[in-house]
Parts: sequence; C-alpha cells; structure tokens
Amino acid sequence: MEWETLYARRMGRVEPSPIMELIRVLSQRPVINFASGLPDPAGFPVKALQEAAAEILAEDWRAGLQYGEAEGYRPLREWVAADLTARDVPTKAEQVLIVSGSQQGIDLVARAFLQSGDVVLTEEPSYLAALQVFNSYEATARPVATDADGLDPGAAATALKQRGVKLLYTMPNHQNPAGTTLAPDRRHTLLQAAAAAGVPVLADEAYLHLRYDAGEPAPLAAADSEAPVLTVGTFSKTISPGLRVAWIAGPAPVIARLALLKQVTDLHANSFTQRMVHRYVAAGHLPAQVAHLRAAYREKRDAFLRALERQLTGRATWTRPAGGMFLLLRLPSGQSATGLLSKALDQGVAYVPGAAFFPAGGGEGTMRLNFVSPPLTDIDEGVARLARAIG
Amino acid sequence: MEWETLYARRMGRVEPSPIMELIRVLSQRPVINFASGLPDPAGFPVKALQEAAAEILAEDWRAGLQYGEAEGYRPLREWVAADLTARDVPTKAEQVLIVSGSQQGIDLVARAFLQSGDVVLTEEPSYLAALQVFNSYEATARPVATDADGLDPGAAATALKQRGVKLLYTMPNHQNPAGTTLAPDRRHTLLQAAAAAGVPVLADEAYLHLRYDAGEPAPLAAADSEAPVLTVGTFSKTISPGLRVAWIAGPAPVIARLALLKQVTDLHANSFTQRMVHRYVAAGHLPAQVAHLRAAYREKRDAFLRALERQLTGRATWTRPAGGMFLLLRLPSGQSATGLLSKALDQGVAYVPGAAFFPAGGGEGTMRLNFVSPPLTDIDEGVARLARAIG
Repeated sequence: MEWETLYARRMGRVEPSPIMELIRVLSQRPVINFASGLPDPAGFPVKALQEAAAEILAEDWRAGLQYGEAEGYRPLREWVAADLTARDVPTKAEQVLIVSGSQQGIDLVARAFLQSGDVVLTEEPSYLAALQVFNSYEATARPVATDADGLDPGAAATALKQRGVKLLYTMPNHQNPAGTTLAPDRRHTLLQAAAAAGVPVLADEAYLHLRYDAGEPAPLAAADSEAPVLTVGTFSKTISPGLRVAWIAGPAPVIARLALLKQVTDLHANSFTQRMVHRYVAAGHLPAQVAHLRAAYREKRDAFLRALERQLTGRATWTRPAGGMFLLLRLPSGQSATGLLSKALDQGVAYVPGAAFFPAGGGEGTMRLNFVSPPLTDIDEGVARLARAIG
Repeated sequence: MEWETLYARRMGRVEPSPIMELIRVLSQRPVINFASGLPDPAGFPVKALQEAAAEILAEDWRAGLQYGEAEGYRPLREWVAADLTARDVPTKAEQVLIVSGSQQGIDLVARAFLQSGDVVLTEEPSYLAALQVFNSYEATARPVATDADGLDPGAAATALKQRGVKLLYTMPNHQNPAGTTLAPDRRHTLLQAAAAAGVPVLADEAYLHLRYDAGEPAPLAAADSEAPVLTVGTFSKTISPGLRVAWIAGPAPVIARLALLKQVTDLHANSFTQRMVHRYVAAGHLPAQVAHLRAAYREKRDAFLRALERQLTGRATWTRPAGGMFLLLRLPSGQSATGLLSKALDQGVAYVPGAAFFPAGGGEGTMRLNFVSPPLTDIDEGVARLARAIG
C-alpha cells in the first residue's frame, strides 16, 4: 500500500517541528537545558490538585467521568468570563469555549477562518507551533516589524490592508520566544487598525500571568472592547499543562461556531480535568499560586540576566523580558546559532536555535533560552558554558 | 464586524448536530430517555480510578501534570499494542497514537487523507459524528448497501473502485446506530477489496468490547494482517468517556504522520488521564470491568428486546444487536419518526429520529434507541409509552 500517495494536499505542509525533535534528543543528554519549552514542575500545585481530584471522584464522578458539553463545563466558563470581566474585558459565559490547551484554541480559530492562500500577520519572531498550525491550513504567515515593545502598529496598519490578510496573530504579553510585551500605548492603535481593515485579531495570552516587572499585565482585548479580538488563554502556565485545560473568548456567535467545530474535532474537553481546574480556581487558590510562580521565576530571570551581563556583555545582545519563560539572544553578526549548537552541547548546555521562529526566514543568529525550567543553581554555570561555546 | 463573511469555506459544512441539540433539550424533560448517547454512569469504575488518580498525584505528578509526547504516554501505547497483538492484530508501540477520544481519531485520519470532493464509503446508517467530520473536510459520505450482517462486501467492492473514493469508514462491531456487526465471513473479502482498490479502511472499534452474545468479538484488522486498516479504539465505553483517552493503530509511518498532525492540533493527549487509564489497565482491572458491563448491559438489551416483542410485534421492526448500546427501530412504511417525536415526548419517552444517520437521505421511518443508558426498571414502561405513541 502506497500510503504516501494517499494523503490530502495539506499534509505536505505538516512537518516535524525542529524544536520538538531537538528537545527529544536533548532530554536524553546530561546537559544544562535552556532548550526546554516546559514550565518548572516544582511550581505545580500538587496538594490542591490532589484534593480536587479526590473530591470530584467522591462527589461529582457521575458527571466528571461522563461525556460533557462541547462548549465546556459551565461553571468553568463562568469563572473565565468573570475573570476576564475583572480584567476589563467584559465577558459572559456564552462567550467562552473551553479547549484542550491553547494550541487547540489556535487550531480551531485557524480551521474556522483560514484556507489555502490566506495570509496571517504575526510578530517576528513568533510562536513556532502557531506558525505550524497556519501552515497546515495552507495559509502563509507574514511577519510584521517587531521591536522591544512588540508589534509596530504603523507597520501592522499597512500590512492589515494588504490583500489576502485574514488574521493577525499576536502574543501581547511576554511572548514566546523573545519575551517581549506589546507596549500599552500601541494597543488601542493596533486594534483600531484591525477593526478598520476588518481583520480579526487572535490574541494568545498564554503567558499573561507570568509577569515579574511591576504592574499587573492586561489582556490585549482590554484596550478596546469593540475590537474584533479572539483571546486564547490557558491554565497550563499557572496550574499544569498536563491537564490540558484552556479557553477561547470572543463574540458569542463566533464562540458558538467554534463550539460546533470543537464538537466535530473531539466532542468536548476533558470532563475530569476541567472540574479539577475549576475546583482549584473556585477555591481561590490562583492568586497565591501566581504570586508564588512570579517570585520563583523572577529570581531565575534576574539570575539569568545577571549571568548574561557578566559573561556575554559586548559579545551578544539579548531581550530583557518583563515576564514569561523565554528570552532571545542574538549572536554577533555572521554567527549561526544552529552552527554553534554542537559546540554548546559539547560544553554541556542546550538552547533552541531561533531561526524556526522567524516566519519569513532570518534569525540564524538568534537562540531561545528558557530561564524558568532549569534549577536556579544551574543558571550561572549554564550561561558560563554558553559563553565558552560562543568564545 | 461582519464575522459571518470571514469564515473559511469549510465552515459552510460545519452544522449543528440535530442529535446533540435534541439531547440537550431532552435532558431538561422528565421523560424516559432512549435518546441519549451516553453509557450508564453506574458502570464507571470509580474506586479504581480514585486509587489511580491518588497514586499519580503522589508518585508521578512531575510527569503526570507536565507536557507530554505527541504520540502519547509510552506505557499506554505499549499496553494497547500488546492488547491488539493478543487479539490477532500484531502491533508494536510505534504503531499506536494516543488521542483525545475516538472522535479525534476519526478527525485526524480525515484531516490527513480527505480534501474537497473526496468520497468516503460508509455503512447505511452510520455514525453521525463521523459523517460530520467527513463533511467538515468538504468530502462526501457515500453509503454502501448494509444489512443485518453489516456491509455487503460485493457492493463495497464495486463502490471501492469508483472515482474519488479515498476512505472506507466502518464500525465493524455493534455499530452506532443500528447495533449490527460485520459477519466474520465477510471480513477478509472486504479487506481484500479495499487493498485491491488501494483505499484505506478506517475501522472504528468503539463498541468492540460491549458484546452480549456468545463469542469474543474480533477487531476487523484481525481478518487480514496485510490489509490497509487504521483502527480507532477507545476507553470511553469501558472505563470512562470523560477522561478522553482513545487510540489509533496502523502502519508505523502513517502513525508517525498522524502524530505530527496531533501535535499541530493540540500538542498531545491529557498527561494525567492517560496515566489514570494506564494504571487501571496495567493493574489488570479491565477484564472484570468488561465482564461486569456485559452482564449489566446484556440484561438491559434482553429486557428491551422482550418489551419490543411484547408491545410492538407486527407494528414495527427492529435490529437485534449482539452488543453495543443502540438498536434501530423501523416504523411501518409511511410513518415518520421525526413526525412522531412530539407525540412520544407527550407520552413521556424520547428517542433520536434515525434520518440523520443516513448519509444519502432516507431513514425517515427509523429511530435510534439507547438500551444501556436508562435504568433497567424504566425499560418496560418506556417501550409501552413508545407503543402508545406509535398507536
């Protein structure tokens, strides 16, 4: 059987992620690992989740083990709506769809809106697995000029008017891979431009809560309650990624359409882990958990930035994220991060070459560094090894 | 914002499920409910799942709450492979992808193989939510002649040679909605015809274990180990649907491609509930659980068939399933099951009109009856009410 000849055309655009492959290889090697995409498991609120699981299986197992509604567990939808409303994004439960991780949120939005030849505007660099989704629907990601304050709203306004542009995808807060945040004074302008062009904005707020600098981070949608924004958020970075509970929020009619698509795709999100997450947040655990994560991750970020300054000032540049999990380091002109990788591994440190995050090519001189996953005590030594590899 | 004008073309093929809407309405009404698609929650193995959840959160939470591999939790893949091998489908772990419910298995296979204008051969009637998946990829389901012994292999052989046929979708054992099983002597012939035509078979074995007549049910793939079969199986009908753990098995290179697609779609299946299911099956609980379900569901099936014979002989005909959850009742010529529904609801009994399960139309005189979900003590009265409605 010649299976290769049988695939649909779109499968020509579904390729292995260079990062996932690398992470798999690295997980076998005894290196200091700045390449990971994972949060620190030390931050998982195990005790509260034990209680939540035990309570559901004692009191609510008839529903918690049964099929559920495509839209998600109603009390969790209500909680998300209330939380968004408190963050100046007025939202009702009907405007929230629970999904199996924010990756699925991105995939459902892409499946609903993108077809062959469409263009998605993105940051440069942008989240690789989102670029892969757009590609899988035979759409093309087109980067918009991005600086330390996020997307350039002037460049975005111009790009939004171009033919074929169907979506603007952005991580407004502490993005992956560079850690940049869209400046507050750019947000309203950007949303106005999208509204004027009739192009929906998909705001991926996966890293919203992980802020280490002063000030409470705001979802992009809060900058203009009339703008055409679909927001994807997740409990993966604050509670646990393994439970696969995330959400999409937007206009009720769009959420209803996405819920139909969710039903076709996999019927509904996990009944049991939706209830675990809901018990956890309804018990009021989240603010203390977020504060705990912020303190632990802030300490690591600060240690990482200090180590970079000590070891690499003048020999590389890097972003200084106000939050999130990653920073982007840029080697001196002409050096390739891909080329440097085996040397770094020989020194005993791993990172992800940044090129794959650049939708239109480039970025060969960049690398993504995860500063939250390694133990605090490994950071100095890891950066020293990186400095030796850079030479 | 005119969202309706922005959707991709495929969204014109994503429509509300008439069944899901009906089930939602019915769940509010105090009727005897034969319309449900649910297993009986009394069958959920709550105590063993309590232990599994507690153990994971005590011993294995670092991995159980973390991101996982797109292919699924390795020990569970190994267990599924060993179980299939024991059922005469020789399978290695590399040939198994864990998915979030068998609905997702169907969706991933469709996404990999179907594009606009393709044809999928199906039973008549067939599983509505699979028909919806094929439709969502702008493919067309084409029914093949089906009788009490399942697909007619001669008709299938002819249909498989037709232009544009890309997939044959079948539920070989105790199918939804009619409960029919593909006769053993038809299986090899059917698979040979598919192989000869170069058309993959998607065998949906969701109801494999739920057999009440004598004999151990066999997966379709066991009939010919060389045939191009992708098998979808699930723990939803034996352990719990809310945990969203199912699998696809097939040739290793195809599974590798589907795993890439799974990663794009939602990264990976639930780390926590995959481990719950694995602990459950690895502890050897499944055979006793299946025996328990079979005994309980057999009693209900028998009661249902007896009640139908007593109340409706000569006024309707129905399938006599060897297993599964559903049977299909056919009204006398000219009567519409849709037309009868409000009368039935007035009598205090609900069912699903069968027309939606017929991919090419027809079936107006049929209804799907779930015989496992209602309490045993409701079955006689429910069938009596149905008989009064039929008149």
